[in-house]
Amino acid sequence: MIILGVDPGLTRCGVGVVEAGGSRRLSFIHVDVVRSDPHISQDLRLLAIYNGLSEKLERFAPDAVSIERVFAQDNRNTVLGTAQAAGLAMLAAAQRGIPVALHTPTEAKLAITGNGKAQKVQVERMVMRFLNLNEMPTPADAADALALAICHALRPAGALQGGEREEHLTAAQRQWALAAQRTKRRRINGDRGM
Amino acid sequence: MIILGVDPGLTRCGVGVVEAGGSRRLSFIHVDVVRSDPHISQDLRLLAIYNGLSEKLERFAPDAVSIERVFAQDNRNTVLGTAQAAGLAMLAAAQRGIPVALHTPTEAKLAITGNGKAQKVQVERMVMRFLNLNEMPTPADAADALALAICHALRPAGALQGGEREEHLTAAQRQWALAAQRTKRRRINGDRGM
Repeated sequence: MIILGVDPGLTRCGVGVVEAGGSRRLSFIHVDVVRSDPHISQDLRLLAIYNGLSEKLERFAPDAVSIERVFAQDNRNTVLGTAQAAGLAMLAAAQRGIPVALHTPTEAKLAITGNGKAQKVQVERMVMRFLNLNEMPTPADAADALALAICHALRPAGALQGGEREEHLTAAQRQWALAAQRTKRRRINGDRGM
Repeated sequence: MIILGVDPGLTRCGVGVVEAGGSRRLSFIHVDVVRSDPHISQDLRLLAIYNGLSEKLERFAPDAVSIERVFAQDNRNTVLGTAQAAGLAMLAAAQRGIPVALHTPTEAKLAITGNGKAQKVQVERMVMRFLNLNEMPTPADAADALALAICHALRPAGALQGGEREEHLTAAQRQWALAAQRTKRRRINGDRGM
């Protein structure tokens, strides 16, 4: 199963592609940043991001696209552009019938390091370990996109949304469900809390 | 010159089309709402809005697209979906080489009624007068999309952005430049003020 992760942004949009085999075996396929020129008009910037993402989807034909969930409380100067870039990634996937999953940064950190509040360097180290890499692939800031792809691959089978029944879960599934519930509660309370 | 106005939204996206002739002569062409089902996943909702807007652009082949500018301070529950819908409208226009203009609600009210703080009913009345209509076209809530199209048609030739030289302007151009500066200041101060 090929998973394409997207760390959305209007100036830099990270793309990471991994292949997930059985028993948590993962391999690195691709990492890149799709860019738009901050000096051109917003419509042309969105077109550049959309074209770049579409090209990646055509090239790697992923089975799923994993996109970082954007919150209205995120950085006021960039949140709208980030939301629009995430929207374009969803559109490009939907146009090809590819399922889309949204994951919060906390979910990604939790899935990869076991700690939803892990530092960036811890996440990067685990990304390298999961993908069997000797060094972080460049550009370094695309690591988040790889983390999102890995997060989607590692999510416990039948990962629950908050509010679903929690009996008969493995420890990992319980932890996941708990994080999902916390995220949901934060969203309802309008408090990002990260 | 045909202008297509977009009042962006993920559930309801207003579309209004007008034709602008010489000396502020305007005529009504079309008004409609492009919808997405709130019960389907976000990627499919965005696809529905994008397809609906693309169909309008194909059908009316406008010379310009006028979209309401979204602010990060807008309603927290809907601002991301609104920004994404605006992003899709920009993308669909850019894909066809159609110029895009963003106008704030204040700019639209000012251009249409002469008062940037006009009430909704005043704006609707002036939309009817400009377009020579005996009643508001349905659906009523698409009036904002018509107002955005009219606003773009009526903007003073060479409407200035804040900070440009303001000598030799007509009264309307001065008023416009002032409103644009106020908008810019609000944006910088992070205060929507409307």
